[in-house]
Amino acid sequence: MSSLPPITDLDLRRATVCQLLHWMAIGRINPQAVAEAYGEAIERINPQLNAYVGLSPGLLHEQARTAGHRRRDGVIGRLDGIPVAVKDNLDIAGWPTRAGLPGRGAPATDDAHVVARLRASGAVLVGKTNMDEGALGAATDNPHYGPTHNPWKQGMSAGGSSGGAAAAVAAGLAAAAVGSDSLGSIRIPASYCGVYALKPTHGEISARGLVPAARRLDAVGLLARSVADLTVLLQVLAGYDADDARSRRRRVALDLPDWEPGKLRSGVLPDLAAVGVQPDVAALFGTALEKLAHALGGRRTVDFADWDFARTRRAGLLLMEAEMLVTFADDLQDAAHPPSPRFREMLSYAERKGAADYARADRVLDAATLKMRRLFSQIDVLVLPTTPCGAFPLAGTEPGNHADLTSFASLAGCPAVSIPMGILPNGMPVGLQLVGARGSDLRLLELAAVCAATLDADPAYPAIV
Amino acid sequence: MSSLPPITDLDLRRATVCQLLHWMAIGRINPQAVAEAYGEAIERINPQLNAYVGLSPGLLHEQARTAGHRRRDGVIGRLDGIPVAVKDNLDIAGWPTRAGLPGRGAPATDDAHVVARLRASGAVLVGKTNMDEGALGAATDNPHYGPTHNPWKQGMSAGGSSGGAAAAVAAGLAAAAVGSDSLGSIRIPASYCGVYALKPTHGEISARGLVPAARRLDAVGLLARSVADLTVLLQVLAGYDADDARSRRRRVALDLPDWEPGKLRSGVLPDLAAVGVQPDVAALFGTALEKLAHALGGRRTVDFADWDFARTRRAGLLLMEAEMLVTFADDLQDAAHPPSPRFREMLSYAERKGAADYARADRVLDAATLKMRRLFSQIDVLVLPTTPCGAFPLAGTEPGNHADLTSFASLAGCPAVSIPMGILPNGMPVGLQLVGARGSDLRLLELAAVCAATLDADPAYPAIV
Repeated sequence: MSSLPPITDLDLRRATVCQLLHWMAIGRINPQAVAEAYGEAIERINPQLNAYVGLSPGLLHEQARTAGHRRRDGVIGRLDGIPVAVKDNLDIAGWPTRAGLPGRGAPATDDAHVVARLRASGAVLVGKTNMDEGALGAATDNPHYGPTHNPWKQGMSAGGSSGGAAAAVAAGLAAAAVGSDSLGSIRIPASYCGVYALKPTHGEISARGLVPAARRLDAVGLLARSVADLTVLLQVLAGYDADDARSRRRRVALDLPDWEPGKLRSGVLPDLAAVGVQPDVAALFGTALEKLAHALGGRRTVDFADWDFARTRRAGLLLMEAEMLVTFADDLQDAAHPPSPRFREMLSYAERKGAADYARADRVLDAATLKMRRLFSQIDVLVLPTTPCGAFPLAGTEPGNHADLTSFASLAGCPAVSIPMGILPNGMPVGLQLVGARGSDLRLLELAAVCAATLDADPAYPAIV
Repeated sequence: MSSLPPITDLDLRRATVCQLLHWMAIGRINPQAVAEAYGEAIERINPQLNAYVGLSPGLLHEQARTAGHRRRDGVIGRLDGIPVAVKDNLDIAGWPTRAGLPGRGAPATDDAHVVARLRASGAVLVGKTNMDEGALGAATDNPHYGPTHNPWKQGMSAGGSSGGAAAAVAAGLAAAAVGSDSLGSIRIPASYCGVYALKPTHGEISARGLVPAARRLDAVGLLARSVADLTVLLQVLAGYDADDARSRRRRVALDLPDWEPGKLRSGVLPDLAAVGVQPDVAALFGTALEKLAHALGGRRTVDFADWDFARTRRAGLLLMEAEMLVTFADDLQDAAHPPSPRFREMLSYAERKGAADYARADRVLDAATLKMRRLFSQIDVLVLPTTPCGAFPLAGTEPGNHADLTSFASLAGCPAVSIPMGILPNGMPVGLQLVGARGSDLRLLELAAVCAATLDADPAYPAIV
């Protein structure tokens, strides 16, 4: 046998899920070694990043040991031995689900559906990741659990609300993560942290055991270090769940990709500056489009003149804030563990709104659904930056519009993938987003893989490792 | 050729759609003769019943003439020459869509999707039928257009909100009708008027061009004089509509019925009296169940202890009232044509409710969806009276609970069929309801046809003909 170079801990922490599975399959590594590398890094780096707010190192190693036994016995699941992080608004039985709020100390009795599927596939649960309070925000600057720092630069936001999850994946503290995305909460931190993300078609992955933000928008989403990893995760985690009223009966998810090369119709927005995209992001996007000219096929400019970004943002936020008044009714009464004044202030906006305002906002989602249907009768995929800007300083002001480019896929229930687009002049990454029609998740991932292979030819890595 | 007995006008007006189509196919009648019989009856009887509030006799005969030409040329649609009534909350291009309100005089520019499909199938549109103000109610005692009387007895309610449509079908003033059903508005008047009704799976027939009451509940529904007619109508009118955000991609609608005789599992409620069913209705239901013992297969009592009828009724009503504040915003401001004080009062209930109350009510629908999913994993069909009582006197008090037995199919988006169950001691009819899982529409109709053949062996007819 030829002598292979040793696999270092850093290799393990930069490897994709597929690479780790391959190395385990050929016996070069085992689940315990993976868990040790990740566990050591978490102990060393998490105090700087604050990506995890719930950890149980003993449990991590115990799961890895069991995974090792399964591998020895040859009875393994699709993700066996892979360390996966879980956003703290998804139930893990026996752990509290704090959802970024100060109370909520009672341990969950059952696993969320997605967590149960992870366990069944042999994944090793690493811990619960930090998030915006109640998932309402995109900064992960949590008033109770502190900010999560961006692995590319201390002091910069990791984005949110799944900021801890994205930071963990970027910094090599988890091989992948599951979180939630209601208006962009998976894709925004993926963009800021330079990782890969999928917000699936609404209902494609069961949201049972997710603390609801707005049921018509809430999607369980995925973070990883490659498109192929997102695909594997989707295949493991998607599927109809009779116990989730919003679960979607799978129709096309496992179909083969069916966009013929050369026949793809891509759409781009007419004017990025008009929707608040910063010049350096627009420049990176222009460069990316040039590189991807072949992959993206025929390109046309789509009409978004009828789309009022500010109005739809307000509509989406109202649905979230109104429903959070229901979800967090007890928390708002919990004098011993009061939510932050800012959180109360945001929800109080919905308190001043009537039932008819909710119905009016909900109609905006119907309009978005029709808009996207019409759009995807003309194009196959919409291509745009994931966020109008890169990560912002935690000490600075949070941009008001950073969910504008992600929210319309949420409002219409469409799948969206974010892949790293390049590095901004300030050294921070930013994402490229592909949005497709409902149910096109796997085709979208297939296209994203082609794009990523071009854009990620010379990958950069975060500073904090 | 043998000499056949002549077909009288009364025969034409009691005939089913399928019978009329057959007679036209063999040349015994033509569309003009049908239109004349119906037109003459409308002129004579509608002043007593007030089933129609919008009529255009010239247009009726013009359509019938055109249908006659098509038939002569041998190029006919599935419903060619059949007189169909349209509830006045569905758009007919060129006609105002008043939805039971006093203003709204502007003619609609486009046909509702269902009306366009009726026209494309060759149906003859007879007119617009009376309804409760804004479709909010179940009496069709309209403060602006007057009450619709029950064809079985002057002075009795036809039920609502599609009361005019049901009365027209019962009295032989239309062969069939299309209306809307958000909590029971098709099935309740069908029960009181002794006709057949289908509320399809939510989204099965496009609601484009229907004045929205509550989008998540609104279903375009069908009224006719036989189950076979409902099936033909459903096949003509159902289908995916890309321009309706709530439209459902058809999955099982055109599948063959797949309930094997003898293997059917039917469910019944444990205690009809406890849910407000009046003794004479319960007695008729008991007799019907005996007659249908073979057709309904294995029968079991289902658990409804966790179902709070009052709470779900309030939730459904809040969704309707809140959304009507949006739908009828202009009407509520129209000083020249003010809605009734009662209508304002009902909507003002929603004005006092917050956005969070709407979210809370909407969650009741998710719970109903899960309840019905669990139910239909144990049984194939739920069998119950359509209404807890028969028609009530227009001069009396409207029962508060008469949508309780219809509303849960609406909340869960399930299809439901109502067929005449028998005649109460006071001479009024009442309906039997079959509820199935989402998408089981055609199987449900197949079963309803078997049941109707047993129950309708000796049909009775309304007094007013």
